Amino acid sequence: MTGENLRRSGRRGSQRRGPDLGSEDSQTLAEVGEFGLITALSAWLPAGPRTLVGIGDDAAVLAVPDGRVVATTDFLIEGRHFRREWASAADVGHKAAARSLADCAAMGAEPSALLVALAAPPDLPVSWARELAEGLAAECARGGAHVIGGDTARDDHVVLAVTGLGDLAGRAPVLRSGAGPGDLVAVAGPLGHAAAGLALLEAGLTGDRLVARDLVAAHLRPAPPYEAGPEAAGLGATAMIDVSDGLLADLGHVAAASGVRIDLDSAALRPGDRLVAAASAVAGSRRHSVRTDPVTRPADAEALRWVMSGGEDHSLAAAFPAGTRLPPRWKVIGTVAGGHGVLVDGQPWAEPPGWDHFSAC
Amino acid sequence: MTGENLRRSGRRGSQRRGPDLGSEDSQTLAEVGEFGLITALSAWLPAGPRTLVGIGDDAAVLAVPDGRVVATTDFLIEGRHFRREWASAADVGHKAAARSLADCAAMGAEPSALLVALAAPPDLPVSWARELAEGLAAECARGGAHVIGGDTARDDHVVLAVTGLGDLAGRAPVLRSGAGPGDLVAVAGPLGHAAAGLALLEAGLTGDRLVARDLVAAHLRPAPPYEAGPEAAGLGATAMIDVSDGLLADLGHVAAASGVRIDLDSAALRPGDRLVAAASAVAGSRRHSVRTDPVTRPADAEALRWVMSGGEDHSLAAAFPAGTRLPPRWKVIGTVAGGHGVLVDGQPWAEPPGWDHFSAC
Repeated sequence: MTGENLRRSGRRGSQRRGPDLGSEDSQTLAEVGEFGLITALSAWLPAGPRTLVGIGDDAAVLAVPDGRVVATTDFLIEGRHFRREWASAADVGHKAAARSLADCAAMGAEPSALLVALAAPPDLPVSWARELAEGLAAECARGGAHVIGGDTARDDHVVLAVTGLGDLAGRAPVLRSGAGPGDLVAVAGPLGHAAAGLALLEAGLTGDRLVARDLVAAHLRPAPPYEAGPEAAGLGATAMIDVSDGLLADLGHVAAASGVRIDLDSAALRPGDRLVAAASAVAGSRRHSVRTDPVTRPADAEALRWVMSGGEDHSLAAAFPAGTRLPPRWKVIGTVAGGHGVLVDGQPWAEPPGWDHFSAC
Repeated sequence: MTGENLRRSGRRGSQRRGPDLGSEDSQTLAEVGEFGLITALSAWLPAGPRTLVGIGDDAAVLAVPDGRVVATTDFLIEGRHFRREWASAADVGHKAAARSLADCAAMGAEPSALLVALAAPPDLPVSWARELAEGLAAECARGGAHVIGGDTARDDHVVLAVTGLGDLAGRAPVLRSGAGPGDLVAVAGPLGHAAAGLALLEAGLTGDRLVARDLVAAHLRPAPPYEAGPEAAGLGATAMIDVSDGLLADLGHVAAASGVRIDLDSAALRPGDRLVAAASAVAGSRRHSVRTDPVTRPADAEALRWVMSGGEDHSLAAAFPAGTRLPPRWKVIGTVAGGHGVLVDGQPWAEPPGWDHFSAC
């Protein structure tokens, strides 16, 4: 009476088409059953060179020659983290993988494996599960990882719980707690794009009205710069974090863990034209809707808010010793000093910095 | 906008009382917030000697000196796998940990770590989360593991997704696929107890009417024989599985993966007096209820069905080369032969052997 680990009958190797499930697109999970789903998922998810035992047994076995394994787990819950009317199954697969693999990268590790627990309603189309698996596999390929196992269960909405495993390859893990006064603070990857994309979707600016497809894509399929994580570790990063809750909130975690103050320079964080245009479009759509929003900011202020407080970009923010020569993908946005908290141009930021799952509505 | 990994501010060590959350028993998750919950959970969950980086960063780092890590993930979903009116939060914690740690043991590994993803409604009492953590920590202690990380999110019911990590300590993993003709088949741990306990709960035979508290406990808090897993590997077990779907279903997986037939001897599987007494009590309660059940079996037949098809005992079933001298906790129940499937006294078993999450109602 339990959903077992994803199983398959011992085969392993390169990407394969799943077994013939008949006219799959019209079938549901209830029709193929738990074991039909598991057999299909295992065929859609290729094993990798470090997969010593993959899908198909009580547990997977992964090679971790470093002697340490980096491990993290993240939920992706329908209605909380994604909406099926906005996100394709492939989007959900990409995002579910990205969340956990970015956490591995933020420790300075190379992503190596995923375990995927999938709960779903019985009327979920099998085609949705297939596209989910394709998204998971594609994002794993971006990071150099493979799905090695998981679980299936029934629930009234889709719930994914994804565990990422990573390999430090001899490097020391980069914690949140190592930043020191004088360090540079830099970011690899975009800021505010995912928040802009979410605002565009919420404003109904989709389809023909979609002004910035890449921003919507940044929300639906964030593309973390995985290689920047081990790169930062190699450059001597003193602290690092995945920007998932928002820049100010996440740097606040670094400041608290390190016992330092982080001073940001707003000139380095000025939103680009596309973000401001998106903010204008969202504001315009609000003026033309019956909905009244109590907070209406100028477009450039709203775009700056996305940069400072928007979450889910899954970029990496890190502190480096002063004088570190950073590769071009790292943009310096501030410095570390004695004290506590995060200041912008020497002042506390006026917006509430974070997101709380249990109090937010 | 994401539930981050469980965090804490770098402290680590032995079991501690959580931070002062005021009159905690009357507080809800909404009142303490996500970060209050995470701080509390991290204080309730001790780190272990292999925890190089524990709760409190983007990801955990675990020492795995073997160079391989065993990894598995399992859901425990309210309304599907447990009911809060039957199971205490500590029960849920024990069971959530047991499911994943038993899968590690079934590979021949020693359990080493858990990652716990917890989704819950905002009105969940903080005291429930505290008791959950206590149950998780206590079951981890039974297995020699520690909670090293996790995630929190909001959902309308409690969802746990627990990842177990294990250490093979130089042993080859024991797969499902290695059983060969002539092998012995043996079981460590009880069979049918968890199914009997569930039937007692469903029949309302609780409280003063509870005829077999230990059987109910076997359902609410299965106690897998973790040490039997590495022990079996050391004895040369050719195949092993965690009995979670039911003995016949799980041995069916071994038979299919190994390409063999398994012959069980019903004399070795005869239910004990307590199981038969529980089946009588359940049947008696049915006769006195308005509910009519289309299947009413003699008590000994129902008890045998629990042994053969009941799930969630999380005992271990394994195949061993003929002549292996087994320690007392291993009970020989059959042999391996050429062919396929599982026979009982030379016949197919008449009951449907398994459980399917998507077709079962």
